[in-house]
Order: sequence, then structure tokens, then C-alpha cells
Amino acid sequence: MKVSILGAGGFLGQKLAARLAAPGAPIAVSALTLFDLAAPPVPEANFPVHALAGDVADLPAAAIPPDTAIVFHLAAVVSAAAEADYELGRRVNLRGVDAVIDAVRRLPRPPRVVFTSSVASFSGGQAASLGDDARQLPANSYGVQKAIGELLLMDASRRGFCDAVSLRLPTIVVRPGRPNRAASSFVSSIVREPLLELPTDLPVGDDFTVWIASPRRCIDWLLHAAAMDTAPLGLDRSLNLPGISASVADLLGALEAVRPGAAALVRRLPDPAIAAIVGSWVPAFDATRARAAGFAPHEPVIDLVRAFIADDLEATRRDRAATA
Amino acid sequence: MKVSILGAGGFLGQKLAARLAAPGAPIAVSALTLFDLAAPPVPEANFPVHALAGDVADLPAAAIPPDTAIVFHLAAVVSAAAEADYELGRRVNLRGVDAVIDAVRRLPRPPRVVFTSSVASFSGGQAASLGDDARQLPANSYGVQKAIGELLLMDASRRGFCDAVSLRLPTIVVRPGRPNRAASSFVSSIVREPLLELPTDLPVGDDFTVWIASPRRCIDWLLHAAAMDTAPLGLDRSLNLPGISASVADLLGALEAVRPGAAALVRRLPDPAIAAIVGSWVPAFDATRARAAGFAPHEPVIDLVRAFIADDLEATRRDRAATA
Repeated sequence: MKVSILGAGGFLGQKLAARLAAPGAPIAVSALTLFDLAAPPVPEANFPVHALAGDVADLPAAAIPPDTAIVFHLAAVVSAAAEADYELGRRVNLRGVDAVIDAVRRLPRPPRVVFTSSVASFSGGQAASLGDDARQLPANSYGVQKAIGELLLMDASRRGFCDAVSLRLPTIVVRPGRPNRAASSFVSSIVREPLLELPTDLPVGDDFTVWIASPRRCIDWLLHAAAMDTAPLGLDRSLNLPGISASVADLLGALEAVRPGAAALVRRLPDPAIAAIVGSWVPAFDATRARAAGFAPHEPVIDLVRAFIADDLEATRRDRAATA
Repeated sequence: MKVSILGAGGFLGQKLAARLAAPGAPIAVSALTLFDLAAPPVPEANFPVHALAGDVADLPAAAIPPDTAIVFHLAAVVSAAAEADYELGRRVNLRGVDAVIDAVRRLPRPPRVVFTSSVASFSGGQAASLGDDARQLPANSYGVQKAIGELLLMDASRRGFCDAVSLRLPTIVVRPGRPNRAASSFVSSIVREPLLELPTDLPVGDDFTVWIASPRRCIDWLLHAAAMDTAPLGLDRSLNLPGISASVADLLGALEAVRPGAAALVRRLPDPAIAAIVGSWVPAFDATRARAAGFAPHEPVIDLVRAFIADDLEATRRDRAATA
């Protein structure tokens, strides 16, 4: 079947494309279209792969060719950028979803659309634990835009324009790459940087707890969402996923178990501005509905550290060396 | 203070403008701007009133003049029209809210924005009774667009672009005017038409129950929302209002008490299509938060019938005679 990945240049998009192109992929792909602001890297595959550059809010028809069966819509402006630039967030995160809906409406058969929403669409703070029917009351523009994207795709599914599944991804840990401006940056940095033998700062207390998932498990979930039976979902196309609740102490404990001494590279440097932002984050979700729908439960924290070492550590080290 | 009403040509908008222009209005208006697709009727007032025509999604700057303190945003495509024409609903109900946000962002002082959302943004069916934190899972495009409007205005308030209050209005009973294509049309028709000595059809059972409010009480609530202290609302700018839960039997009982014999003009004519749509409606809401914020509780059902007779019956009769 024909598959499109919008936002295929991001780290999840690249991993997803690589997984679809690798032997034994769970989806029988006949052609793959990769779309992003810059033409995404093309993995080696035994089917045609087209890379295309453009603006998702002004989506070219070629990004979702006729007979496309699955659209992965990962293209987004991330939280710090959406907060800094309201128009940019609205354009990419809202008009982008409208553009995807308008594109799939024109197709003769409504495709599956797998949309990456986020737990950032919730607020409630460290003491909260949210059930599947919890209300989304986002404390940031990115979360608002993701909650709106879910509503638009729910309505588009009800109207028969597409067959959508929206996955509220947990905070992804360990993200490859560099520390960035995102308030959540430290959650990955405190594992990744010490594994690169680099010091890093911890802006919150060791008891700060976050709902996380590994990139590897997120890819599993995206693939499951692409193939699952959506009939049992009914009107509600959004899913809280079975991530894990991990404290900073849990993450550092796992790091120390895998690489003894590494946690000493983490410096406690409280940052009230970051603490204020991440203080609204919810550390625990039920995810009963996603489990019932067959989404794989998460591996333990220590496996998530091992997954980074197996999947991304060497590439990250090479990138750092190349751009140092 | 300067006040704008967007959607001032609708029946609520006209009533609101008349109330603001009448002696003893609870808001000290210095100038009133009325905006709608066609220039709205101008009430007699002891301050300047400007009537302006245009498209809310392409809002002219004059619709919200500099130094405007209060914007009532009532402009909307109603539920049946938003369901029949997806682009029209998106343009008016979504881009309209974006246009209002963009207009108020340019003002030197962020105004109060009072937005009319709807209980149509909820689903759950006749057995449901929803608390203030219930999730909005709309079963129609109009409800989706209203839920999105709330999210956009919540975010705009958090960012300091405006100071918004979104009121999820109950089904308004008794609406003046004629029966229309809305699935909810019968809820008003079964009271209004018999009072005009006209027969009307009841498409659901007598036990069908709906969350209602009178036009008069809705105007009270809009005015309260314009003047209230929003600080206690925090992030969440949306309110379920203290309407009343009334069954068809309650409405017909009140009609019969006020005008004996009138209920005999209501013909039972079950309509499965309408029953299917309205079956998702929720008949009961807590509205604890709105009560605590000073929104007046609703009058009993019989007073709602009397309010229609006092406020709208003769005008409705005249309109019917004029256009018969």
C-alpha cells in the first residue's frame, strides 16, 4: 500500500521511514512519500521512495498521492517554538491539520491518518493521574493546537473524510540530538549527555516525575495505529498511550545501573522558570483504552536507556563530532 | 465603555443590543458597534451606535474599534448549516474566532471577549449528567468548532491577547421566529407554534429531556460574563451555565398551564432521523462553577413560557402575518 509521512525529516519521521523500509516491516508498503520543510533523507528500500519539500499548511497534492492508504501526520512546530511564535504555531499545527484533511477528502478512498498529539495537551500538575476521559486543558499553545488537531480529525473521521487515530505521545526519552530550548529538554539530557561523557544540568528536583516513552516504542505505536481496527474507537479517535511514569531519580538510577558513575555528570541547578512550566505536567495516565486496543505496554526504564545506547548513541556521538 | 457585538443581527444579538441601549443597562456603554453579514438593526440609544456589514472571517478593523472594552462574539453558522457545509462552518466558526483574536491582539488594552459556545459541544446521550470538568466529545461539526473556539480563546487569554469568557449556552427555548432545519427546532416549536394557534409536530417521545434556557436568561448571562471578575477562572475560561433540565412533558405541561388546550396542537410524529441526532444530547449539567461565579440560576419552565409571551409572542405573530 502507499504510505505518506508528513514531517518525515524529524527524528521520529526518519526512524519511521527507516522501519517501513527495513525487511520485516509490519506494513506491506508499495510506495513511500516523505514530506518535510526540506526534502527528507531517503532510506534504502525495495519500493519507490519519493522525497518532497514544502509547507504543510500549503500541502502539495504530491505529498499524499492518489490511492494513499496511510498518512502519518507528524509535521509540527514544537512547544517552545509555538509558544514563541503564535502565528507560526497556528500555521503549521492548525492549518497543517486542515490541509491534511482537505487533501484526504479529495481521495477516492478515505485513508487512515495517524496523527501525533501529545500529553502536553493536558495540564493538572504533578499530583494528577488522568483517566482516558480526562479533559484537555492545555497550559501552552502547542498543547492547545494538538487538542484542536484531535478535534478536527475526530470530526473528519465522523464525516468520512478519513479514518483517523490521534496518539497522545508521552515525553520521548531518550531523544537523540542536542539539548534544545524545550522545557522538557533536560529529561533526555540527563541520560544522553552523561552517556556521551558530557556534563548536564538538572533544573528540577529528583522527585520530578514525567510520563515517558522511548522512540522505539513510539514507532511501534505509530505502526499499530496505522493497522488497527478503528471501529471499536467509535467517535473518540484519541488515545492516551501506555507509557511509563518515571521520576528523575528513576532515570538516574537506570543510567547509573547501565553506566556506573555516569550520573555524577548531572549537576543540580534549579531553574524556577523551567520548574514553573513543567510543574503543570501530568506524570501518570491510565491508558486503559489504548491497552485494550492492543498498544504494547512500555519496557522498564532501564531498557529505555539500553534502547538509546543500541539505537542512537553512536550516531549522536558522530553527529556531535561532525558539527563540533 | 465601547462595546462591539459580532453577530448582532441574530435574535440573541438584537436582544443584547436592545438591552444595552435601554435605560438601566448594567454596562455603561459609550459607543456600540453592531456587526453582522448584513448591517444589523440599530436600536435607539443615548450613545452612538454603528452598524456594519461584513464577513467575520475577514473582520474589518472598524468592527472592533480602538479602546473597545467588551466584544460579544455571537457570530456563527448554526449546527444544521455547519453540518451541511463543512467549509462554511470552518470559515465562520473557526476562522471567525481567529479573526477576533487577531483583531483584539492589536488593541492597546486586551478587551473582555464573551464567546457563545454551546452544549452541542458535548455528547453522551440522555442518560448522562455532566460535571464541570466533563470532556467535550462533540458529535457534530458545529460542536467541534465551538469546542475549538473555546480552546483558542483560552490560549489567547493565557497569552494576554484578550480576557475571554466562553459560555456554553443551553438549547434556547422559546426561540422566536419560525421552525427551521435545526434538529433542535421542535423544542421551541412545541411551545411557540401552539401559542400562535398553529399545529406542530413532535418527533421524539414525551420523556425526551433537554438542557434549556430562555433568551432572557441568556442575555443576563452574557451581561454577567462581560462584567465578571475572571481571575478566579484561571486557565479555564469556559462555563457550563445553570440552565434547567426539562422534558417534552414538562414543556407541554407548562404550555397547558399557561394556555389550556394549546398542547392539543402538538402532533406526535416520531422521526427516527431527528431522534438519532438529539439522542446524543446531554440533558443535565452541574454548572457548579458558573453558579459560584454569580451566574443567575434559571427560572422554572412555566416562567420561560411566560417570558416568551411577554417578550416575543406579538412580534413573532406580526412577522408571520407580514411574511405569510
